[in-house]
Amino acid sequence: MKKVEVVTDIMSANDQIAQENAETLRAHGILTVNLMASPGAGKTSLILETARALDGRLRLGVIEGDVASRIDADKVAAAGIPVVQINTGGACHLDAPMIRQALRALPLDEIDLLIVENVGNLICPVEFRLGETLRVMIASVPEGHDKPYKYPGIFTAVEAVVINKMDLAPYVDFDLGALHEAIRGMNPRAEIFEVSCRTGEGIGRWAEWLWAQWQAYRPAK
Amino acid sequence: MKKVEVVTDIMSANDQIAQENAETLRAHGILTVNLMASPGAGKTSLILETARALDGRLRLGVIEGDVASRIDADKVAAAGIPVVQINTGGACHLDAPMIRQALRALPLDEIDLLIVENVGNLICPVEFRLGETLRVMIASVPEGHDKPYKYPGIFTAVEAVVINKMDLAPYVDFDLGALHEAIRGMNPRAEIFEVSCRTGEGIGRWAEWLWAQWQAYRPAK
Repeated sequence: MKKVEVVTDIMSANDQIAQENAETLRAHGILTVNLMASPGAGKTSLILETARALDGRLRLGVIEGDVASRIDADKVAAAGIPVVQINTGGACHLDAPMIRQALRALPLDEIDLLIVENVGNLICPVEFRLGETLRVMIASVPEGHDKPYKYPGIFTAVEAVVINKMDLAPYVDFDLGALHEAIRGMNPRAEIFEVSCRTGEGIGRWAEWLWAQWQAYRPAK
Repeated sequence: MKKVEVVTDIMSANDQIAQENAETLRAHGILTVNLMASPGAGKTSLILETARALDGRLRLGVIEGDVASRIDADKVAAAGIPVVQINTGGACHLDAPMIRQALRALPLDEIDLLIVENVGNLICPVEFRLGETLRVMIASVPEGHDKPYKYPGIFTAVEAVVINKMDLAPYVDFDLGALHEAIRGMNPRAEIFEVSCRTGEGIGRWAEWLWAQWQAYRPAK
């Protein structure tokens, strides 16, 4: 079959709904972060520490994505943060239709910063835009410093990399300089944060960056 | 449309090739382990420690699966183990056709135990049989003890769970009893091993189990 050149991309069904989500979020002045990481890298812990560090300066909302369980949503709800749990029932990533449904269940007028905790996976979530403003990933210290070479897609796609579990660095074979270099090599514009959700180290700088991002976003409300 | 009951499953293309791989492997008397885990849980380290512990009792071969890079294959080759690297180029799991191709590049007559290191992912690899004899997963301590509830598919599917990085237990919030209980609850027959690839703790018992599995497999050669 002859190959036909297509001048404009036909927008996928997911991307179309993602754009509608983005419009809904902008109309409510909500900056949205799509937070991606491996299982157990500390996504929920980072959300809870971010809430503590922002200390009410931004009103948080959270969407929790998991294959199964409501463990994370319960933790976030216990901190008094509006939260919706999505169980993908086997799917390895969140998609825009799931977010559209979750947005209907959140008090959008009472949220400034929405953090979407994606399913624990470094590969598939990158392929599905949700309507987010920013994409952020966590790379945790015990995962090792070679992950950018193995999962280049996600390290290239994000606006920021949060290196979590810095408190474990003395106990594992981990070369922080090598990780920085690998990230810089494939994504020179990404912000890099070194934090420990356990000790609180570095959370302040990360929270300030989110605050600056929110100010630059110039919300409509 | 009226739903039609189907008496026998039509075998998927992947499952058909997986069965062919299984026949090839059996014909060469090779016990094959499909090793799955999150990114950075210690799959390559476990392979290297297993080789050390078996100390030549079984001749190892390895297939390394990664989205990109040949870092892991280089490590395995440096230990003198025959290895093939598969780069999935974005795919989040290995599949049977990839393994069929890799088998052609391995000295099958010189291998007793083939370990296939799947792509770092707790979700998608479970859906694709490769022709393996056993499925084994690593759950690493810093990932936390709640993972079975969040990723029930993989914890239910495997014959064994290797809890790695036991040396980090004192430094993280980790409840070993709770993890055992969660695994037992959804997969009572799974063998559970507690190991540290860093200190060598527990590797002996794991290697003995592999040896027993290989004896039970009664290879044709």
